[in-house]
Amino acid sequence: MGKAIRLLAASLLGTTCAVMLAHADNNPVDEKWWPGDHGPNDEIGAANYITPQKRLEAVKLVKRGKTATLGMPYSNHMPLVPGRTFTLTIPSGTNETIGPLPWPGDNYEQAFFDEMITAEIGQVGTQWDGLAHGAIRVEGAKGWKDGLYLYNGVRAQDAGTARGFKKNGPEKQPGFFTRGIMVDIAALKGVERLPKGYAITVADYKAALQKQGISDATQGDVVLIRTGWTKLWKTNHLGRPAGEKVKSDEQLAKDLIEAGDGEAGAHPELCDYLATRKIAMIGSDTWALEAFPPVIPGSTVYCHMNLLVRRGITNFENLDLDQLSEDKAYEFLFTWAPLKLVGATGSPGNPIAAY
Amino acid sequence: MGKAIRLLAASLLGTTCAVMLAHADNNPVDEKWWPGDHGPNDEIGAANYITPQKRLEAVKLVKRGKTATLGMPYSNHMPLVPGRTFTLTIPSGTNETIGPLPWPGDNYEQAFFDEMITAEIGQVGTQWDGLAHGAIRVEGAKGWKDGLYLYNGVRAQDAGTARGFKKNGPEKQPGFFTRGIMVDIAALKGVERLPKGYAITVADYKAALQKQGISDATQGDVVLIRTGWTKLWKTNHLGRPAGEKVKSDEQLAKDLIEAGDGEAGAHPELCDYLATRKIAMIGSDTWALEAFPPVIPGSTVYCHMNLLVRRGITNFENLDLDQLSEDKAYEFLFTWAPLKLVGATGSPGNPIAAY
Amino acid sequence: MGKAIRLLAASLLGTTCAVMLAHADNNPVDEKWWPGDHGPNDEIGAANYITPQKRLEAVKLVKRGKTATLGMPYSNHMPLVPGRTFTLTIPSGTNETIGPLPWPGDNYEQAFFDEMITAEIGQVGTQWDGLAHGAIRVEGAKGWKDGLYLYNGVRAQDAGTARGFKKNGPEKQPGFFTRGIMVDIAALKGVERLPKGYAITVADYKAALQKQGISDATQGDVVLIRTGWTKLWKTNHLGRPAGEKVKSDEQLAKDLIEAGDGEAGAHPELCDYLATRKIAMIGSDTWALEAFPPVIPGSTVYCHMNLLVRRGITNFENLDLDQLSEDKAYEFLFTWAPLKLVGATGSPGNPIAAY
Amino acid sequence: MGKAIRLLAASLLGTTCAVMLAHADNNPVDEKWWPGDHGPNDEIGAANYITPQKRLEAVKLVKRGKTATLGMPYSNHMPLVPGRTFTLTIPSGTNETIGPLPWPGDNYEQAFFDEMITAEIGQVGTQWDGLAHGAIRVEGAKGWKDGLYLYNGVRAQDAGTARGFKKNGPEKQPGFFTRGIMVDIAALKGVERLPKGYAITVADYKAALQKQGISDATQGDVVLIRTGWTKLWKTNHLGRPAGEKVKSDEQLAKDLIEAGDGEAGAHPELCDYLATRKIAMIGSDTWALEAFPPVIPGSTVYCHMNLLVRRGITNFENLDLDQLSEDKAYEFLFTWAPLKLVGATGSPGNPIAAY
Repeated sequence: MGKAIRLLAASLLGTTCAVMLAHADNNPVDEKWWPGDHGPNDEIGAANYITPQKRLEAVKLVKRGKTATLGMPYSNHMPLVPGRTFTLTIPSGTNETIGPLPWPGDNYEQAFFDEMITAEIGQVGTQWDGLAHGAIRVEGAKGWKDGLYLYNGVRAQDAGTARGFKKNGPEKQPGFFTRGIMVDIAALKGVERLPKGYAITVADYKAALQKQGISDATQGDVVLIRTGWTKLWKTNHLGRPAGEKVKSDEQLAKDLIEAGDGEAGAHPELCDYLATRKIAMIGSDTWALEAFPPVIPGSTVYCHMNLLVRRGITNFENLDLDQLSEDKAYEFLFTWAPLKLVGATGSPGNPIAAY
Repeated sequence: MGKAIRLLAASLLGTTCAVMLAHADNNPVDEKWWPGDHGPNDEIGAANYITPQKRLEAVKLVKRGKTATLGMPYSNHMPLVPGRTFTLTIPSGTNETIGPLPWPGDNYEQAFFDEMITAEIGQVGTQWDGLAHGAIRVEGAKGWKDGLYLYNGVRAQDAGTARGFKKNGPEKQPGFFTRGIMVDIAALKGVERLPKGYAITVADYKAALQKQGISDATQGDVVLIRTGWTKLWKTNHLGRPAGEKVKSDEQLAKDLIEAGDGEAGAHPELCDYLATRKIAMIGSDTWALEAFPPVIPGSTVYCHMNLLVRRGITNFENLDLDQLSEDKAYEFLFTWAPLKLVGATGSPGNPIAAY
Repeated sequence: MGKAIRLLAASLLGTTCAVMLAHADNNPVDEKWWPGDHGPNDEIGAANYITPQKRLEAVKLVKRGKTATLGMPYSNHMPLVPGRTFTLTIPSGTNETIGPLPWPGDNYEQAFFDEMITAEIGQVGTQWDGLAHGAIRVEGAKGWKDGLYLYNGVRAQDAGTARGFKKNGPEKQPGFFTRGIMVDIAALKGVERLPKGYAITVADYKAALQKQGISDATQGDVVLIRTGWTKLWKTNHLGRPAGEKVKSDEQLAKDLIEAGDGEAGAHPELCDYLATRKIAMIGSDTWALEAFPPVIPGSTVYCHMNLLVRRGITNFENLDLDQLSEDKAYEFLFTWAPLKLVGATGSPGNPIAAY
Repeated sequence: MGKAIRLLAASLLGTTCAVMLAHADNNPVDEKWWPGDHGPNDEIGAANYITPQKRLEAVKLVKRGKTATLGMPYSNHMPLVPGRTFTLTIPSGTNETIGPLPWPGDNYEQAFFDEMITAEIGQVGTQWDGLAHGAIRVEGAKGWKDGLYLYNGVRAQDAGTARGFKKNGPEKQPGFFTRGIMVDIAALKGVERLPKGYAITVADYKAALQKQGISDATQGDVVLIRTGWTKLWKTNHLGRPAGEKVKSDEQLAKDLIEAGDGEAGAHPELCDYLATRKIAMIGSDTWALEAFPPVIPGSTVYCHMNLLVRRGITNFENLDLDQLSEDKAYEFLFTWAPLKLVGATGSPGNPIAAY
């Protein structure tokens, strides 16, 4: 935090400031934050919390035989951070991709299509932040070699290559097959979408649990937070291929700006609380989990740092939690594994909740 | 099938010829093959067979609390059909991707990484063939409009765009959460890898079921066939990023040629049999499910046509079934949903088997 | 043209209608349009017009020893047709791309960077339309096999593959080293940018020649038309990498909509006239050469069809002609060759004008 | 250079060792190597040497009216450093890319194709190394801030972003329109291809000049060196789209290994000599300009460092110089400008030599 910002922060009064100060010391170099719960060579983080016993309990949550897929459609109608891209084309050149292939008949033959995709595929749309996504830059701190530190003390300068990270990649992950819970904060507050910047507190979380009649997160759970934020881009595409418009360019630009300009999200105190519950993963229907503008000035992505980087609790963004909300499915078997993209920073996904 | 090939086929004798003739008439224009079991507007095919009751029964198969992830690692060390590609890079330019971001401390700040991937992502490595992947070209057949026909009578010329298909895309799929079975034919035959061109028969399948002590496929099951074929490229990368070599270029070229030059796979009669069982999906540890060279000359991809295109039974290729084999996990809860890639022909994947 | 449109067209009166009717019969199946000037096996079109003698004359136009590069900067700030993309990233992962390499000293070593680009590279930004770009679909015309016809009677269904066209690709082109002329219609009209839909006539063209003091196009020339249209996106990036904003998202969206919603361009009669002059190439500072909305209702891209497809006169779009305008450099040596992208439809470029 | 390598180097005797020692001190931190000839804010390097007078002289070299294009075809049959890629597909999905568009006739309509390309486009195939390509890592040297230094003292950590460099990009370059000379060392030595590791000396260079009857390089020239090395991959594709084979996979693998395992190239002394001539650019028909294995152990890419990084003399690789050789065109007008890829490290190209 630069000097000017620190002065500004110090001059703030009231609740926000108190919270800020409470968290301001909780920084990565205050403590030796690795090895953590999972040992010095661990590369999978909080997925370790999911035990065979945990899995056996989780399947008992499947009572209706119903499932919801939690991924949003991927297309170039998604909101994209400027500089990121998603493009899908069907190669063909007026002929079938691979073919024709022979077939025992006179008037027909076979053909196949594939699709060419270019994207920051683990960091666009529904995206799971893996353990090579976030880093803390340390410079000039006593006892630390300068550099960018990923989960478990892996220095990016040592593990990074231009073609993928040698450590902490999704190909190491064992998958998530565990109890999932969804806290529907939008429903709790009686709104379609929480206001921009709204920071969901521990009190909100506990009120939602109580209202929904489910118990608190336990070790190895996946905790999903619903804000209603995906409403802003659900209407962009509705499953249409790139180029098919459903709104005017003006409206699309306006909605994307609104979607990306801020969001409701988890308050730092909620992330800290869930960390103490030793959850396996956190997720939400927002693009970055946290409230923006941030609760603590100068601490923009508190939860990413304290959950992902520090504790190996990975983070699923831009989930579609609407069907769970409609079905009042607050507790379920959550099942998903990231694509084994060797050395990647994340993974796209379409998890299944079964209840 | 051209004239020369038909003459050749007609001159073949014995079992193969009998099988060939049995299937030669079983072609797409012999019958009105749509609408099928799932109605004229269906776009999801055999996934329809998975009912709530089916799901409730499937979770009972989770007895040990153990899971296996069935995806192979994705890297540019995978075998690739010439003209297909997989490339992953970590954008950075010596600086962090998005950052620096402020943090309340003097000696550090935050950074994030993403990955840029270009690939025919639904048709390289572990890949699920969706309902816009395969097509039958019909020309000059009475009562048919000329064109390429996808599942359920969708003409590619009508539904295809350069940016994705308007119908039959994976974004429509409800996900697969059902009983899975694995028939370990390599183990049945006592070999590490079945020989190239070996066609797995119904008798093989039933012998494996009996040896493994599991019951036959039932409606809505996912059936996975293990041939040992992934052995040929499991040693290519072992989770290494692109560019890290573990074998010489000569050896890699040799192994890739061997891997792609043919394969063991399902005999057409086995695909026909499984179709009668109304399975939800078929899968294997091979790149194209079927035996190559093909059992029926001139009928190269019989199973793709009769399962995928004709009946909407999708097909998962290049799965890693080795852990299931080691654990003798022959019956399990299979759980996976394709990425909602709007208008794509398939999806990459990393399914979970829980047992 | 559909029936409704034809009725509408027939009811139009006056100049526009006369022009329309004059051209309405000039359609591709009115005449046997191949082989043309360059023989039945030609794949390079009007580049054939450039002779050694032509080249020797062209170098005499270099009088000041000055050059202008006519390409616009490529970045993701360019206007892009929805569904097209341009993305550039510097792979690195916090380490150098290829390196470190040894060097004879203790405190340093070498590193190299590359860039990963994904784009419809021949059809975004400054783009040259090659002879596999445009096609005319013929169906049910007597004496024609149904299909999409490229330059010189090449049927796309015969020459097209998913990985590039077998004929008419830019790798066949010999390059353009010839006399270039620039007609500055914006200057002629005394405006910064011609109004949307303005169609540049033969009279405009001749008035510009006269005002500028240069002679008419001759065989083998490259003719460039300046409308001022690039003004609309020159301010988008100013050489900045992707992600660096110079205008607000709202303003950018507004400008891009304005840039793409129409344009000034060549009137069909001008294209017809230049075809008679046997020019080697046409170019402009617009995204599609022609006036939009089109002069002839129902004949949207008249010039593309009659120059590119019919006569092999290729077309360079989104050129930056401002320096030529400032320097009053109306006649020059034009020198450029497309990238030899095997089987591509076009090429990016940065031609040099020397004067 | 590590200790072991230095000991090995010190034990070498004879000419090579003498050369090595002569150059070993000539390292980047021996001298203040910027600002150089072109001032502290320069971002275009040796292109500055090309003056209007130089251009006017260069056009006089066009005597026959003949041109050669010096680019090699781009396809996925090119040799590629592992981890780099080139992929081109024609998007279509059985329909035309943009279309159909109306046309005034009953039986036809228009369609257009584009191509989707993904590649490290400035660093594959025929490639021009720009001023953001090479860097020297300096650590712990007195008076230097640690980091990777590009041309003119630009620290990559300061100028680099994940989406392109802010300085030294090809969009800044004014283009090369100047005298080019080609020294045909393969012809001088009477071989089709120089042997691997052969280092072309100043004596070779001067012998070639004399044999060819041309004068030495002068300020602002482009100097091209022909080794015959492209022979190794010219037969890979012959203009065929990806997937069309002209050799067996075994032979292709063998040839690519041979092509990439080493090469003939410029001796460090030749690069030093040409630097004193203040040339504008160097080029060759090899993938990295320099002899491999390197002449000076531990100084792998001497020429890149001393020409590109230190003096801003850019470097064009994998040129096709065969037509120049056949035409004995040793002196010519060289004309080319890099694509204005904002912030890129290089550019693909297809320069024109006119003579």
